[in-house]
Amino acid sequence: MMSKAWSPLHFYRTEGRAPVVLVCEHAAPHMPEDFGDLGLDAKTHMSHAVWDIGALKMAEAMSQELDAPLVSCGVSRAIYDCNRPFAAPDCIPSKSENIAFPGNVSLSASQRDTRRRLIHDLFHEGVAQLIASQSEKLGAAVAVITLHSFTPVYFGTPRTVEIGFLHHDRPALSEAAFRVEQHRNIYNAALNEPYAKQDGVTYSLARHADAQGLHSTMIEVRNDLIQSDSNAQAMGQHLAATLKEALARVTAGRGA
Amino acid sequence: MMSKAWSPLHFYRTEGRAPVVLVCEHAAPHMPEDFGDLGLDAKTHMSHAVWDIGALKMAEAMSQELDAPLVSCGVSRAIYDCNRPFAAPDCIPSKSENIAFPGNVSLSASQRDTRRRLIHDLFHEGVAQLIASQSEKLGAAVAVITLHSFTPVYFGTPRTVEIGFLHHDRPALSEAAFRVEQHRNIYNAALNEPYAKQDGVTYSLARHADAQGLHSTMIEVRNDLIQSDSNAQAMGQHLAATLKEALARVTAGRGA
Repeated sequence: MMSKAWSPLHFYRTEGRAPVVLVCEHAAPHMPEDFGDLGLDAKTHMSHAVWDIGALKMAEAMSQELDAPLVSCGVSRAIYDCNRPFAAPDCIPSKSENIAFPGNVSLSASQRDTRRRLIHDLFHEGVAQLIASQSEKLGAAVAVITLHSFTPVYFGTPRTVEIGFLHHDRPALSEAAFRVEQHRNIYNAALNEPYAKQDGVTYSLARHADAQGLHSTMIEVRNDLIQSDSNAQAMGQHLAATLKEALARVTAGRGA
Repeated sequence: MMSKAWSPLHFYRTEGRAPVVLVCEHAAPHMPEDFGDLGLDAKTHMSHAVWDIGALKMAEAMSQELDAPLVSCGVSRAIYDCNRPFAAPDCIPSKSENIAFPGNVSLSASQRDTRRRLIHDLFHEGVAQLIASQSEKLGAAVAVITLHSFTPVYFGTPRTVEIGFLHHDRPALSEAAFRVEQHRNIYNAALNEPYAKQDGVTYSLARHADAQGLHSTMIEVRNDLIQSDSNAQAMGQHLAATLKEALARVTAGRGA
């Protein structure tokens, strides 16, 4: 049988003019047959264990609304989690919440190396090139926004937060976006919830924003709010408005 | 309207075990809307001016037959020709044969820079990572094979050569494949025809093989032989047999 093509990175709206680059690491549930059978059942294949439900549709709507370029990963985070460095124990996860990935447990060093090179390295090179391209096009610094979703119930406990803004070591844009969101008073927003830097989830922010002196925030949306394409699109439009205001505040205040 | 996703690189059969990496730079006619309207008519959109007709289907068949990984470019060579360095005047071509690409003539420096970064740089980083991954997996040097097709009539002159084997500065594998092909006596084969290094077409070989001390050859097939998927598949199988024999000869003889 012919092996199917796959790609670690996809670009959208690279002609966009906003001083923003959108990043969606967990965009796709796709598990290329090249990486073998992870031992998952059909139900798990489309569950939050293998991708961030709704995040890509939401990101596409933000891309359109802001006129901002977007880069997404084309491979499931169950194969390689692009929001983790290769040094992280869970970069090639053996489980997610309470779902095991048996096929990931006894990979050889060269199988792990292939995933690192062809997924992690190329995805992050794509993010870096998109940021460089957008900065050069505008002659100005850009903000880096990563888009994620989380499950409403985690280890049996319901989560009340609806939108979280997370930062690594540079909080300005996350704090501004949180304040704007609070003021709009539509969703239950939080800062550094349901995850935070201490959970090891701010790798992309650290690598592509903090290290470059760029503003950034990681937006986590509870996935029951963006299950349908129309809901995800509406949330993308909502967050685009929040971000525009937050970016105006951080740009008007102290610089990056 | 939602901007469509595109990717500069696609992988196939990355679990393959052959000491070979296949590369198809001109695989796709795809022109993402992000790069604007090149001013082409509908007929030109699927002509050899914008891609190498049949080359990807042929490459996929070789990948299967050899059990070798393959990387292809997902963007038309009319947007960026991945077999050219950014320094080449025709890397973003203003014409192909006698077909003009008006939309490419007056691009800004930043538009050219975006194409370089997001297409050329990422595609070649993908080729380099695939070669490194395959070498590490096998613990051995790999050969680099690039797959192309050419038009039967060029500037009004019919071409009689059917299969060409081209080299940059390391001729061993091209010469061996040419001799095997001559001996099989099915197609009209040639060495360094219809193009050669002097035409500036051996960039990928120079960069990924010669510079690394790897064997390589660029295979050019006349596209009237691979117009249909079944013909392309048959040619891929034919060339896989030629390559197996040629690789055995160069491996048995002096090393890389």
